[in-house]
Amino acid sequence: MTALVDINADLGESFGIWKLGNDEEFMPFVSSVNIACGWHAGDPHIMRRSVELALENGCGIGSHVGFPDKIGFGRRHLKISPAELRDYILYQTGALQAFVTSMGGKMQHIKPHGACYYLTAYSAEHGAAVGQALLELDDNLILISSGPGGAAAREAGATVAWEGYVDLEYDEKGDLVLERSVAPRNAKAVGERTVKLVKDKVMPKLDGGTFDLEVDTICLHGDSPTAVEVAREVRRALAEAEIEVAPLSQHKLTTTRN
Amino acid sequence: MTALVDINADLGESFGIWKLGNDEEFMPFVSSVNIACGWHAGDPHIMRRSVELALENGCGIGSHVGFPDKIGFGRRHLKISPAELRDYILYQTGALQAFVTSMGGKMQHIKPHGACYYLTAYSAEHGAAVGQALLELDDNLILISSGPGGAAAREAGATVAWEGYVDLEYDEKGDLVLERSVAPRNAKAVGERTVKLVKDKVMPKLDGGTFDLEVDTICLHGDSPTAVEVAREVRRALAEAEIEVAPLSQHKLTTTRN
Amino acid sequence: MTALVDINADLGESFGIWKLGNDEEFMPFVSSVNIACGWHAGDPHIMRRSVELALENGCGIGSHVGFPDKIGFGRRHLKISPAELRDYILYQTGALQAFVTSMGGKMQHIKPHGACYYLTAYSAEHGAAVGQALLELDDNLILISSGPGGAAAREAGATVAWEGYVDLEYDEKGDLVLERSVAPRNAKAVGERTVKLVKDKVMPKLDGGTFDLEVDTICLHGDSPTAVEVAREVRRALAEAEIEVAPLSQHKLTTTRN
Amino acid sequence: MTALVDINADLGESFGIWKLGNDEEFMPFVSSVNIACGWHAGDPHIMRRSVELALENGCGIGSHVGFPDKIGFGRRHLKISPAELRDYILYQTGALQAFVTSMGGKMQHIKPHGACYYLTAYSAEHGAAVGQALLELDDNLILISSGPGGAAAREAGATVAWEGYVDLEYDEKGDLVLERSVAPRNAKAVGERTVKLVKDKVMPKLDGGTFDLEVDTICLHGDSPTAVEVAREVRRALAEAEIEVAPLSQHKLTTTRN
Repeated sequence: MTALVDINADLGESFGIWKLGNDEEFMPFVSSVNIACGWHAGDPHIMRRSVELALENGCGIGSHVGFPDKIGFGRRHLKISPAELRDYILYQTGALQAFVTSMGGKMQHIKPHGACYYLTAYSAEHGAAVGQALLELDDNLILISSGPGGAAAREAGATVAWEGYVDLEYDEKGDLVLERSVAPRNAKAVGERTVKLVKDKVMPKLDGGTFDLEVDTICLHGDSPTAVEVAREVRRALAEAEIEVAPLSQHKLTTTRN
Repeated sequence: MTALVDINADLGESFGIWKLGNDEEFMPFVSSVNIACGWHAGDPHIMRRSVELALENGCGIGSHVGFPDKIGFGRRHLKISPAELRDYILYQTGALQAFVTSMGGKMQHIKPHGACYYLTAYSAEHGAAVGQALLELDDNLILISSGPGGAAAREAGATVAWEGYVDLEYDEKGDLVLERSVAPRNAKAVGERTVKLVKDKVMPKLDGGTFDLEVDTICLHGDSPTAVEVAREVRRALAEAEIEVAPLSQHKLTTTRN
Repeated sequence: MTALVDINADLGESFGIWKLGNDEEFMPFVSSVNIACGWHAGDPHIMRRSVELALENGCGIGSHVGFPDKIGFGRRHLKISPAELRDYILYQTGALQAFVTSMGGKMQHIKPHGACYYLTAYSAEHGAAVGQALLELDDNLILISSGPGGAAAREAGATVAWEGYVDLEYDEKGDLVLERSVAPRNAKAVGERTVKLVKDKVMPKLDGGTFDLEVDTICLHGDSPTAVEVAREVRRALAEAEIEVAPLSQHKLTTTRN
Repeated sequence: MTALVDINADLGESFGIWKLGNDEEFMPFVSSVNIACGWHAGDPHIMRRSVELALENGCGIGSHVGFPDKIGFGRRHLKISPAELRDYILYQTGALQAFVTSMGGKMQHIKPHGACYYLTAYSAEHGAAVGQALLELDDNLILISSGPGGAAAREAGATVAWEGYVDLEYDEKGDLVLERSVAPRNAKAVGERTVKLVKDKVMPKLDGGTFDLEVDTICLHGDSPTAVEVAREVRRALAEAEIEVAPLSQHKLTTTRN
């Protein structure tokens, strides 16, 4: 059996007159996109263009739900309640859904952004709230998550695609280390890490050790200076290892993990 | 045949800690509600509560789409293009739709707010853009509008419910006079104006004259100091005149006017 | 020697069309006001009216610096760096200063709001950053603070007026318990607590014990349902105990405390 | 006598994580900078860095006051009253002043941005309001303006530096044509236009004619793709024509013009 993995990346993180990322250049390397919904980044016009771009590239489309913190790009921790989180998920996902629907597409997933991702992955209570929001809205949607929060969302009944970050680091506890601005990476090293993650289901830690991690989707950041180079090498390495890349909607997401 | 009319009012125009209007007290008098979508007023938590309240009261639910101008409560003219407007309509309507869907309801209509209403009612080009946004998203939705913009939306293929304001004034040309803060009104006078509008299809102007106006829905403002008193008297006067009040979804919206 | 204390309260926490608090009614009871600067609440027009009101009432004027979080009224924790905090203090204080200067007044103090207050009072690193911002801008300004952060600001060289909250609670460690929405209080109990705090320099804790607290200024909240009643009783009790109330600019702020 | 002119450019129009313009590269060509104050662009951290950069380059510093419209970059018309405008000027200028003061600098001028510039230059009523705001705050400040609004500010008592745009166009009435996004320009043509404007005091119009325009300062845009090339050529052409470039604070601004 061929191994199968999804590669997800953030899309549409420009804002008004301000550009971020190389969306056109980066899209061809990924199978699913997380589109910013106007809170941490993005605006209605950028959302429209991003949905168009995703549909042209045949990518699975998800809402990239962020905190109401544009100055901090949604990468600063904000203490909100599970009830607040649930409503933020609905609001932003619905806003994006209107564009997807109006262009004849279909939403595939929800993926929180930055500090909101962190909260939903590492707080079980908040993870469960995201799962509930997803189920209320449309139980065909998939949540991209990980950690105890991802597990809680799965227990709440949501379909969760398990995720690994190959261009960020994990600390000694196996927790993701959030960066305010994603640093350049060594393309070759990220490519090797990716293949190892998909084949051997292990992820390296900052302390030199590894931990077990079985993923459905791999996240690549488009806003790092080496983004395109890294993405190209990841795809090359996956192809060489005969690992297929396809949107989550083409996966069977049935296993229970973590 | 009994005359039939819808009464619409704005709902959920509080924001964060700040309260506006007496939503609980005002709801029983209206058949359709326009729920603020977080741009000129409202936030995700208030949207949830507002949808709950609307469903409890059996009101038709619409998105109250406003300009991104909270300081000015969306009542200041902002020069945006039809393309920008179309995207603002989709974004805000989609955001609200997520709450309505998640609570098992169904959206009935779209109604722009304040200066955005004015733009979509008095610019044919912008009215048409709103009609297109509506058709793209869900052609079962009804647009509440009036003026040349309302006519343009109808020509674009959208179902338009024609609207009259009984607690605002119309100038000598028959154009609506926008108020930054809605002044108190004489309840009895508003009641009489309403019955006359539904039965005789005429609206008074500030210059003492009248103009022809055939409406499907009447707007009442909840943020005026006399709001509840006015609404009670309007309902009493309509009942006395044997005019039925029901949400737009129960109307046959087929006539072509203006 | 007569005891002397300042009473400070928040002013100008309305926003756009939305009203909060009874500023006109509440002002006569206080000697210093903290005016919201447009981030957690307030806007330029409200700032103008608030400065006018403060000058009419002879109150000391300070900037009420908050997090960029209007939906949460600046009462949700946001993880910002000391460098970010320093710049937020300068921005908001400068904005207010322009109104004070243009009306012929003079700024007396800086007081962070809500979760920003909490951060600057309980993180020494952030407290020091606020002290530095104040010194950079105008070393005649007084910082209203408390806790290890207040101590750090004082060590950095800033003049700090020590503060006690008589209408909030302190936990078993003597740390302030932040409320998202300030609950009603018993006026008589708050009055007694106030006199005891000024005379005996002790504050009760939620666990039934007390801790030592020597204050220059007492905070009263205007947004609680019992605000005016509580303020009136506090002034009555202080007058009865022959404790004088005056703005901080009339105090000698020389003591060193923790 | 040598001719003297100021060259002003916008600075600090990045926002949060988003970059705009090449501030470091562009600064050496200009003598005065207009620093965005967080409304149409900029944030407190960018304001700090911009003030540092301006002080290092010996540029005169002014507040670049914009509309509260980040999505539209302050380039969309917003209908605000003169009283609202006055308060927006004070708020933003004060916010910037805090950074300038804290770094030992001194504010030189106020220059509205985009649609706000347009309003203050072409509405006498709004121009006068800006003049009043400036006088209230600090009558040593200079207003950069033009048109009937600039004349009204001058009549109100404000010192006004008259401005010409050499990288934008003027229509047949001699009114500035605002662009949402500044297009590339021919460097040589802009250089010639600049020398002609300073020496002969005439400006070309889109219809092929010219109109009389005597300026104290010339605006160059840093956000056009050809910005640096244009600026270099303008400086070269001015040097060749023996026209001196210096900040407005070194000019004698005494003439009365329209």
